Parts: sequence; structure tokens; C-alpha cells
Amino acid sequence: MRRPTRLTDLAPEFPAGVAALNKNDLELVEAACDALRTHYRPFWHTVAAAVRDGSGRIWTGLHLGATVGRLQVCAEAIAVGRAVLEGDGYLSTVVAVRHPKPDEEDRSLAVVSPCGGCRELMFDFGPDAWVIIPLGTALVKLPARALLPLPYRR
Amino acid sequence: MRRPTRLTDLAPEFPAGVAALNKNDLELVEAACDALRTHYRPFWHTVAAAVRDGSGRIWTGLHLGATVGRLQVCAEAIAVGRAVLEGDGYLSTVVAVRHPKPDEEDRSLAVVSPCGGCRELMFDFGPDAWVIIPLGTALVKLPARALLPLPYRR
Amino acid sequence: MRRPTRLTDLAPEFPAGVAALNKNDLELVEAACDALRTHYRPFWHTVAAAVRDGSGRIWTGLHLGATVGRLQVCAEAIAVGRAVLEGDGYLSTVVAVRHPKPDEEDRSLAVVSPCGGCRELMFDFGPDAWVIIPLGTALVKLPARALLPLPYRR
Amino acid sequence: MRRPTRLTDLAPEFPAGVAALNKNDLELVEAACDALRTHYRPFWHTVAAAVRDGSGRIWTGLHLGATVGRLQVCAEAIAVGRAVLEGDGYLSTVVAVRHPKPDEEDRSLAVVSPCGGCRELMFDFGPDAWVIIPLGTALVKLPARALLPLPYRR
Repeated sequence: MRRPTRLTDLAPEFPAGVAALNKNDLELVEAACDALRTHYRPFWHTVAAAVRDGSGRIWTGLHLGATVGRLQVCAEAIAVGRAVLEGDGYLSTVVAVRHPKPDEEDRSLAVVSPCGGCRELMFDFGPDAWVIIPLGTALVKLPARALLPLPYRR
Repeated sequence: MRRPTRLTDLAPEFPAGVAALNKNDLELVEAACDALRTHYRPFWHTVAAAVRDGSGRIWTGLHLGATVGRLQVCAEAIAVGRAVLEGDGYLSTVVAVRHPKPDEEDRSLAVVSPCGGCRELMFDFGPDAWVIIPLGTALVKLPARALLPLPYRR
Repeated sequence: MRRPTRLTDLAPEFPAGVAALNKNDLELVEAACDALRTHYRPFWHTVAAAVRDGSGRIWTGLHLGATVGRLQVCAEAIAVGRAVLEGDGYLSTVVAVRHPKPDEEDRSLAVVSPCGGCRELMFDFGPDAWVIIPLGTALVKLPARALLPLPYRR
Repeated sequence: MRRPTRLTDLAPEFPAGVAALNKNDLELVEAACDALRTHYRPFWHTVAAAVRDGSGRIWTGLHLGATVGRLQVCAEAIAVGRAVLEGDGYLSTVVAVRHPKPDEEDRSLAVVSPCGGCRELMFDFGPDAWVIIPLGTALVKLPARALLPLPYRR
């Protein structure tokens, strides 16, 4: 892991709504890292995600690269699709990790904050989910809603 | 099934490259239908897909609806994601089926032709795959490449 | 306008970073409304956007509907495309308005908050832009950055 | 232009439905090239498109890159958006050109075939349009419908 995952690395005080990771959260991060270590393929699978459903089971997903960049599929979408199809379809916690690019010196995996598109996905499929993100040099979790303030309404 | 799936319903002559379905293909169609019957949810899960990988295993996927329409995820993407993550990642055959809308009289499921976005996905992840589609009142299969002639090249 | 646009309708106190609209902002909202009134077409063009560039010029855009829902194009993207191609490419303020659906009783246009995808677009093309959104029954503006906290980094 | 644009470079015989370019088509290609030469910016604007509407006017568009790859916007979408907003909204001919990447030896612009996503866009907004594409070393045009055979139907 590029970013510290130990709770002792976490800042003692967080912004409102931000919480420290617990053992289950660290296990989820590790599941995403495992999926990426196993399936990493430059360009095609560079990000993995892991979702814990309401029953406690973990579902992972891989980013699908594409010749046509805008037709890529985010790792979160695959993980959510599996949670809906194979799990109970309720998202309790979500995390995504990226692989370093071939020319990056730091070869460790890193938790990344979800993109705006995935924030909508979480809002639709897990409005009460926690999302694990990097904050400074620490990992923290915060409510999915906090990542999409004042959302679009149809 | 809204469209006939029996081979006897197939037109005796097809355009070049089009082939009749075999037992495995019909099983794949049925797997997609099963997933849709089990998980159908108006607006959110209205299409299912099934992919057979190179080892013969079947992976299904569900369409993920979205409050923001353009952030929807096609069922094929979820099925391909599972084939890559859990299967051998090689696509040999792909099919998608849709559920009738609430106000449609015909309540049977129907095989649908993949959208242009999914044709790119198949081109990237299964350039030699077969795709099952409706042709007139029959079901046939044809090479994924035939659905994306003269493709974009980077 | 479905939502009040007069400053007197604005709440006297806002959350941090939120500001009241000025005359230029109201003109921008009106430009988006004009584009939508002129070009509205059910399903195909139901949202319009307006962008003011750094030179003060206004560029409008229309949502492009699609048979395949996920291939829709947001109105903001068209407006930004025009600002880049015809204007100075700098976004100072952005707003989007939606048309009521055919079965909605209230027939007035309404400012809408941008989707997660468009928040990424603004972050890329106008990191210092203001975005006009509804807040309660008022219209306010806030920095684009505030709509995408803790963003994804590659 | 990386690919020959002169009619004398065109193969004497084409597949069914494929036609040679006329002066208007070459002018359209040149308009797309002009837009790209003027606005090219590595990563952000690497493709341009040009659309001729039913009244004969030309509308160009630029690709919008994105930090989050799947949130990119194709150049064709911007051009179509302008044709709908400023022109008569009818697409008669479409073309896209790409810039060489920084490390490519050949520094000329090249016509590219549209991606599967843009084929859906053309099908929706210009079902009778012609699309200019490279075929071998020549440029030809063919009906938009020919690029999306047996399309998805809702």
C-alpha cells in the first residue's frame, strides 16, 4: 500500500463526518489490493474496487480499459454489479485502489477517491454507504453522500 | 421469450457470417433470462446479459440504472467483468435480453442486439466472440466483428 | 422559472462558500432558459446549460438524448465544447436548467445541480468556476470545487 | 493529412454502399483539420469532428479529454450539439480527424472511423447521414447505418 493503512497513521482529528477505519475496513482495502495484484494488466485493469454488502460479504471488481477511452468501465461498477447479482445488493462500504503506472517509482498500490461518475453510482446503490479514501497520508472513511453534496435531482 | 428460440423458427438462409444457434447458445440465452427473471427491477435492472467464457462457464450481468441516465452501466459490462475476474477472461459467446416495460402487452423477455458501446467492449475483450441477436423473428449468432465494421483505431 | 431567481428570495444566510447571484448570473440563467425554450424536444433535448467564459461571453448547450441511455451527452458538455472552440475556453460561471416532464403540473423551467460526471468536467475545464444551483427555494452559486470534494486523482 | 484525400488515390472499386468523396466532402475534412490545427492540445483536444447540416453549413467540434477517462466527450458530440443548437439539426455528412501522438513519427492529421458510441449518436441524430472514413489508404464515405448493422432497439 502506498498510503499508510495503520490506524496509528491517521490524523487524530478529522473533518466532520470523517471516521477512522476499523478491522473490517482494512480487510476490504486488502481485498481490493488482492484483486488488483492478481489481475493487474497495464491499460486494461489498472484499478480494482471492493464492496462490502449488508450481509458482510465482500465483492470485488476490476476496471475495464477500452480502445475508446470514454467507453471504459469503472471497477466500482463491476463490484456493485456483483453485489446486486450475487450478494444482498446493499452497499455498506466501498473502496478503490490503483496500481502504479509503469514509469512510477513508487510501486505500491494506493487507495483512490472515487470519480464523480462513481459517486452517482454509490448514491443510487448505496446512499448510506461509507467510502474509504485517502486524506493526506492517512486512510479514512466518510459517507458517500458527503462526496456528492447538493446532488442532481431529476 | 418474446422471440422464437427454436431452431425450426430460424430462416433457412442467413446473410454471410450468420449462424444458427446450438444447444450451448440456447442455454446461454436461458441463463440471461433466468438472471433477469430473478433480479428484474423496473428502471434499475431491465436488461441482463450472459457471457460464455473459453472454459465453457457462463457469467451473467445486470444492467445498472442511474438517476443520471448517461451514468448507467450496461449488463454486458458486468458480465464481462465477472468473466475476467472469476473466469478465464475469454469471451466465446455473448447475449443480452430485455424485460418488457410495465405498459407493454407482450410480457415475454426478448433477446436484444448490443448497443454501439457494448460492441466496442466485445471488440476489446472478445474480438473472436459470437453474439446472439434477433434477426426478423429468429435468433441467430454472428461474429462480434460483424457488428462493428471498419472500427475506430487509435 | 420554477425556482425563485430574485435575490430577495434568497436566504439571508448561506453555508460557507455559497454566494448570492448577481445580475450577470441571472443573465446566465436566463440564457440557459432561452436555449431550452427554443430547442426543447421531449426525450431529446430536456436540459440546457449556459457557460460564461473569461471574456464575459455566454455559450449555451443542449442535452442530447439517446436511444441507448448511457450514450446521452449532458448539456454542460456541449456548452463547454463551444466555450473552448469559440470562446476563450475559460469557465467563470456555469448553470443548467431542466424542462418539466410532460406529466408534471408545474410547467416552469428549473435550475438543476450538475451531475457527478459534469462536476468532473467543470473540475477539468473550470476549476475556479462558480456553479449556480438551487438551494431550498433559492438560487445560489458556489465554487465548482465544493461540488466535488476530495476528488479522484490519477 | 496522413491519408490521401485526392480522389485519384481512391480504389477504383468499393464495397457496396461505399462512395467516393466529392468537393464538399473534402471541404468538410479540411474544416475538421483546421479546427484541430487551431485547438490541438495534447491529452485535452486530440480529435476534431466536422458535421455538415442539411442547409450546407459546417459545424466543428473538439474532443474533450478528462482526468477520469470514461468521462471524456467525443468531438462528434460537440459538433452535433452545435448543429442542433445553431444549425438546422439535420446531419448530412460527418467526419472526425485525429492528431498524431507526441511520439509518432508521422506528424500529419488522419481521418478516423467513429467509435461505437458515436455510431449510436449518428444513428439518432443523422440516420441518413454519410460518414467519411479511411478505407485502406483512401478516404471514402458510407451511410451511417452501415457502421451500425442490426442496431439495438429499445
